[in-house]
Amino acid sequence: MRDHGKDTRGWLNVVGLGPGAEAMITPEVSAVLAEATDVVGYVPYVERIPPRPGLTRHGSDNREEIRRAEQALRMAADGRRVVIVSSGDPGVFAMGAAVFEAVESGEPAWRELDIRVMPGISAMLAASARLGAPLGHDFCCINLSDNLKTRALIEKRLRLAAEADFAMAFYNPRSRARPDGFARALDVLRETCGPQRLIMFARAVSTPEESLRVTTLADATPDMADMRTLVIVGSSLTRRIARNGAPWVYTPRSTPGAAP
Amino acid sequence: MRDHGKDTRGWLNVVGLGPGAEAMITPEVSAVLAEATDVVGYVPYVERIPPRPGLTRHGSDNREEIRRAEQALRMAADGRRVVIVSSGDPGVFAMGAAVFEAVESGEPAWRELDIRVMPGISAMLAASARLGAPLGHDFCCINLSDNLKTRALIEKRLRLAAEADFAMAFYNPRSRARPDGFARALDVLRETCGPQRLIMFARAVSTPEESLRVTTLADATPDMADMRTLVIVGSSLTRRIARNGAPWVYTPRSTPGAAP
Repeated sequence: MRDHGKDTRGWLNVVGLGPGAEAMITPEVSAVLAEATDVVGYVPYVERIPPRPGLTRHGSDNREEIRRAEQALRMAADGRRVVIVSSGDPGVFAMGAAVFEAVESGEPAWRELDIRVMPGISAMLAASARLGAPLGHDFCCINLSDNLKTRALIEKRLRLAAEADFAMAFYNPRSRARPDGFARALDVLRETCGPQRLIMFARAVSTPEESLRVTTLADATPDMADMRTLVIVGSSLTRRIARNGAPWVYTPRSTPGAAP
Repeated sequence: MRDHGKDTRGWLNVVGLGPGAEAMITPEVSAVLAEATDVVGYVPYVERIPPRPGLTRHGSDNREEIRRAEQALRMAADGRRVVIVSSGDPGVFAMGAAVFEAVESGEPAWRELDIRVMPGISAMLAASARLGAPLGHDFCCINLSDNLKTRALIEKRLRLAAEADFAMAFYNPRSRARPDGFARALDVLRETCGPQRLIMFARAVSTPEESLRVTTLADATPDMADMRTLVIVGSSLTRRIARNGAPWVYTPRSTPGAAP
């Protein structure tokens, strides 16, 4: 790690806070938060950082990613120690890509800033851990929001992922602004994967509101997901282990036909 | 979290140690390691846990996953506090799936054991963070090892992933036992993605031996990867930002044709 103590220039760290629990924030992220002068992010994530003297918290609305990234870059260029906070991991449908979009289209001097990305526990891996190991074999990760891509592309990817027999993790399955997109995704999945395929809904993992549900595509309904839900669909080999309490779900490491 | 202090029954935690740096181990993982009586895992991962009185470290060889899982389950059933350690995240091509395979095929009583999985910083997300944000849009994650699946299936998945225009993260690209598999994968990728597609090699991320390389499929050679290398191939939209020092690489959040 850089020696912050001797560094009088500004810097920008783009960090992941994990899915919610304090105990899932890595020590390297806690360390830069302790040295920051400014924390920037979507309001509910910024509010996860306790106020302290010398720290300014800049909360902004959702869908303001580029403006937020530019604000952070300007402050770092002005010599401030800036942390952009994302939930989960900053590189997975979060502020990482937005920051580099802003760097590429922004002031040439921004390219030479001290910018670092620090990974976090992604919602997908936290959800998978709570359920067992449903992503234990090849998988894909798709953002179901059609804010930034067409529905045709989402549907194409779902069909190809099913053909590849990937397990699938879905971010942003459902919002009030587009209530029917997830219903359509479930239709495509039922058609391509069959009604008995396992589907899992992991909501607000590691927070007091956590809830988990394991069912099949036949029984899945759009209202089982909201914007705090991470959805996982198993591959054709994903299995459920019955037990007292919630079942375990896992995808075996081997596929049929593999050498012994 | 369970109250370990009052719990006299055994338990099993399957945890991720992250890619190598101590500062990327989550506090919840450090906490269970401090309470464990036994740590089980592949030798180099077990050696990351410092010895202490009251802790027995059980290192085993690679490819011994099921036997190792059964050993851990037996000890937990005997009332011991057991941690299985994986590098990265336990749910991504690591011990998570092996443990549940052993549970399903093992003693019925094992299903009622206190088993928990604790996520870690996966190699893929750590590598992505070091490079910028190459997994900032839809992506897939494929284990290139043909130990547990056929080469035909690997090649099929590579072709479908290319058609879906996913960014791709590859685990286990290359080993001495199968030197030509990665060469074949590069051929398939060149054919499906074209020679100018970006490819990144991230070796031993967050350790003193860390090295990063950003190049194109045209210039990629099999010897750029070994078993400690995480390989990322960009989507058709993945971009490189030139600057003094290593370039940033990111995949934009939007695709062409998306609503503004």
